Amino acid sequence: MKSFAQISSLFEEKFNRNHFPAEPAKLYQAAQYVLGIGGKRVRPACVLMTNELFAEINEDTFHVAMAVELFHNFTLVHDDIMDKAPIRRGLPTVHEKFGESTAILAGDVLFAQAYDYLMRIKPVFLQPVLRIFTKTAKEVCEGQQLDMDFEQKSDINMDEYVQMITLKTSVLLAASMQLGAILGGAGAGNQDQLYEFGKYLGIAFQVQDDYLDTFGDPQKFGKQIGGDILCNKKTFLWLYAMEVASAGQKDQLLELSKNDDPKKVEKVTAIYKMCEVDAWATSLKKKYLEKALFHLDEVAVQKVYKEELNKIALHLMQRES
Amino acid sequence: MKSFAQISSLFEEKFNRNHFPAEPAKLYQAAQYVLGIGGKRVRPACVLMTNELFAEINEDTFHVAMAVELFHNFTLVHDDIMDKAPIRRGLPTVHEKFGESTAILAGDVLFAQAYDYLMRIKPVFLQPVLRIFTKTAKEVCEGQQLDMDFEQKSDINMDEYVQMITLKTSVLLAASMQLGAILGGAGAGNQDQLYEFGKYLGIAFQVQDDYLDTFGDPQKFGKQIGGDILCNKKTFLWLYAMEVASAGQKDQLLELSKNDDPKKVEKVTAIYKMCEVDAWATSLKKKYLEKALFHLDEVAVQKVYKEELNKIALHLMQRES
Repeated sequence: MKSFAQISSLFEEKFNRNHFPAEPAKLYQAAQYVLGIGGKRVRPACVLMTNELFAEINEDTFHVAMAVELFHNFTLVHDDIMDKAPIRRGLPTVHEKFGESTAILAGDVLFAQAYDYLMRIKPVFLQPVLRIFTKTAKEVCEGQQLDMDFEQKSDINMDEYVQMITLKTSVLLAASMQLGAILGGAGAGNQDQLYEFGKYLGIAFQVQDDYLDTFGDPQKFGKQIGGDILCNKKTFLWLYAMEVASAGQKDQLLELSKNDDPKKVEKVTAIYKMCEVDAWATSLKKKYLEKALFHLDEVAVQKVYKEELNKIALHLMQRES
Repeated sequence: MKSFAQISSLFEEKFNRNHFPAEPAKLYQAAQYVLGIGGKRVRPACVLMTNELFAEINEDTFHVAMAVELFHNFTLVHDDIMDKAPIRRGLPTVHEKFGESTAILAGDVLFAQAYDYLMRIKPVFLQPVLRIFTKTAKEVCEGQQLDMDFEQKSDINMDEYVQMITLKTSVLLAASMQLGAILGGAGAGNQDQLYEFGKYLGIAFQVQDDYLDTFGDPQKFGKQIGGDILCNKKTFLWLYAMEVASAGQKDQLLELSKNDDPKKVEKVTAIYKMCEVDAWATSLKKKYLEKALFHLDEVAVQKVYKEELNKIALHLMQRES
């Protein structure tokens, strides 16, 4: 079994090229640009890794891995427009660089190009792969809509937040795991276990994301610490604090979320610490990671084959940026 | 063979229902809303009609026809955002009614739902259908980008305009014809002839569109006459006028395109008439219609079966709105 690093470099070899024709130049430069911004390519690596649990990696696996990565980038482009985000990974977002109209279209062609790769796989796999991919695509849109809805709502509970996060970010990781398994010839039971593994790993990943945004090491985090607090994002941390804080602390948090106190990040973080939000988030992450690993454990292949997936799960949880 | 009216009502029976789940309400209400704005459903009708040239209409044909109509509506939603259009068929556009972010997402789920219908067809047809559909989807995005590029360019020639129109509007009609043929079991030759029939018919349709916008009967047209002139759109009429007008007329046209003369529509139309743009447009439409009908004629099925497609072509050309 190949390590995550080996798998990633295999994928990059195939993926690092222009996926589009030359003309119309503006459209395809915009689509290619977002792919160049990079990222860890975690999802396509998972397609390849779960495939390798059951069979040799082949051309079909790469096609599906590329489709997943193109789809992920399509969602980034459209989400950045909706969030009016000017910067991604230190570079201007597509709509900042190419204008909003071209960014909408560039997202659209990335989505279409994902299907272009999918349709190349062996006919026997085509229908099941399309079914999962398309279901997941709709779910990710639903998650983004819920995220926008939640910005306008004050009374979101933890279950609703987990549901939103699952749709917005976890199902694509889950689907990546399942798609690799399908292409490897895995049965329905193993496919489901790998889907659940990816789903819970995705949620744990998001808990970690929320945690690092407030409690990360500024030297290692790479972004400004406290970004979520500054823009009043409802995160795992915020929702838990609102559950356990005293009436006075709650009033303070709500007050801080309504104004632009120059010490807002410090003050909110201090209340979080008094409420032990940091310890709670760490234990929540651990809970979801354990759920994920339980499902990986249930996959009916020899333990030794699953070690790399186990490692990548632990690695993703220990990241500091 | 069924008439266009019969085919349309068959299609509406299947299509007039909610294509989406209830939640998230805002997202799916937006996606369903644009479908309710209506339209002539010309493209799905063509899928059904070319299918009937070769075989009985069946469930697969309806799936593909629905996919084509959903895709068409996806492009309307995103194009309306890019064009900042407030009204479509007398009703507020999706972004006007639901906000721009939800409109972007609603377009995305319409696109995904198109693939949801496509993936249900018999495996033997899946790969060829996906190939044409996805190629066409990318071409339509290219056409929209070219259309936006042309707004910023002053030196567009007629060939470039025809190329843009072909991508932006004709290839979807062409693909609809071909997809129906594929599902009917037609061979590659007949598929190609029907594709060309749809392509030239689409161009003729656009010439008619441009003509009616300036020379249509205000009582019948349904929109304000002169809309293209008011917003300085480069149309077939404008490009031809710029080719044949005298130096003085050209200066006048360019001057009028730069200001907001209250008599702009009257003045531009008068120059068009002096240049005989109206007669030229009528003959150009006829030329493309003849090209279209030539390819229909080449389709190797008995003439009597092709009569309804012939009729719909003539009908589309005689419309006054």
